[in-house]
Amino acid sequence: MCELLGMNCNVPTDIVFSFTGFCERGGHTADHSDGWGIGFFEHRGCRLFLDPAPAVASPIAALLKSYPIKTLNAIAHIRKATHGAVALENTHPFLRELWGHYWLFAHNGSLHTFRPRLSGRFLPAGDTDSERAFCAILDAFARRWPRSMPSEPALFAALRSITTRIAKHGKFNFLLGNERLLFAYCATSLHYLIRKAPFKKAHLADTDLSIDFARVTSSKDRVAIIATRPLTDNEQWSPLTPGTLCLFCNGTRRR
Amino acid sequence: MCELLGMNCNVPTDIVFSFTGFCERGGHTADHSDGWGIGFFEHRGCRLFLDPAPAVASPIAALLKSYPIKTLNAIAHIRKATHGAVALENTHPFLRELWGHYWLFAHNGSLHTFRPRLSGRFLPAGDTDSERAFCAILDAFARRWPRSMPSEPALFAALRSITTRIAKHGKFNFLLGNERLLFAYCATSLHYLIRKAPFKKAHLADTDLSIDFARVTSSKDRVAIIATRPLTDNEQWSPLTPGTLCLFCNGTRRR
Repeated sequence: MCELLGMNCNVPTDIVFSFTGFCERGGHTADHSDGWGIGFFEHRGCRLFLDPAPAVASPIAALLKSYPIKTLNAIAHIRKATHGAVALENTHPFLRELWGHYWLFAHNGSLHTFRPRLSGRFLPAGDTDSERAFCAILDAFARRWPRSMPSEPALFAALRSITTRIAKHGKFNFLLGNERLLFAYCATSLHYLIRKAPFKKAHLADTDLSIDFARVTSSKDRVAIIATRPLTDNEQWSPLTPGTLCLFCNGTRRR
Repeated sequence: MCELLGMNCNVPTDIVFSFTGFCERGGHTADHSDGWGIGFFEHRGCRLFLDPAPAVASPIAALLKSYPIKTLNAIAHIRKATHGAVALENTHPFLRELWGHYWLFAHNGSLHTFRPRLSGRFLPAGDTDSERAFCAILDAFARRWPRSMPSEPALFAALRSITTRIAKHGKFNFLLGNERLLFAYCATSLHYLIRKAPFKKAHLADTDLSIDFARVTSSKDRVAIIATRPLTDNEQWSPLTPGTLCLFCNGTRRR
């Protein structure tokens, strides 16, 4: 299928370490080699790097592994195509604007029977079930709140209700975020950890690389990392219970 | 102010040569050093590279100068901030989806008095007059054709009418495109040329770099390049008449 990676922090943090391990699964330690993407929020802006080439062979991924971009919220994806050709328009994360905020969405799974009626406000450019699901979510948000973002509890409740409906159509692990909030839904597999003081050394599971986070952080930093499978082999990752929608904000699991 | 660069082709072509000269104006031969961006359409997908750092000092721009991405349509921008802070959310080109197609927009000029009533379907994430104008254009398109793209003449006529209204509010040179069409409006300064057989050598105006296009093209290739100021010093660029809206498609000026 595919794999997901998200990072949500209380201070701008780079994702170089986690992204380096994650990319190994895009052709080396796993065969998710049908494209990759990563989006970084910075203030109200978003930069999204997409490549239909394998992550392990992509010069753009190579640059990002050596060029730290600091962000409060990032979403990444490596793809093994199941639904839709290997093409840029089918490469996750997908980006749309709603309420003057950019939103990123990445999906792991497949939704073979999901054929939503879309109003037309958000339409897929490609032909994946994933982008269709993203459009259906934003469409539902926009119908209910046409002009401005509701409160966080209202948004969470609406997303849970839409997610429950969509999840009936297949396997629907996803990450959805804006410049501050990171929603994570576990249908079958999603793990997370919160890095905070006292920071320790971490070692990647997919390549022999370590970092001593105590040397690159301050005592108040909090960083949540969410991934399909644990990215390190010496830290305690918590599996999410299938059927759980979480919300991360400021490096904390809020719901 | 800012500078614009567009490329529209009949076969997938890279923009490395033109982009290399263009980037020099982002801090070396001109002071458009408040960020830069470039978007490439590939099939129905779009990749957009944005950086609020000067183009001449950006590792991402450096990569793109050596990594040829082939496209039928590309839009680039280097910014000198006049309206809105130097920030990622204010960095052109801006991206939105309408009718299941991605659209890119980049603007040179300023529109101090432009305060459109937006329906809410497209809202700015940043605080530039440029992004507001882009939202106003797409809003007008979507009100008139809510679900699917109209014919090219209808779209052109609608864009001309909206542009005429917006252009009254200041200086409004812009490029607007999707995966096939490149609209260019000249308010004060925009030049273009069509490269086609017999291809010749071209030399950049901003740095000592030449390319012999005869060696990298086939006889059927057609490439339109649109830029605020000519990028080469040994080719014949045509200035557009102020007040002209053009449409490029398949490397040809269609209107």
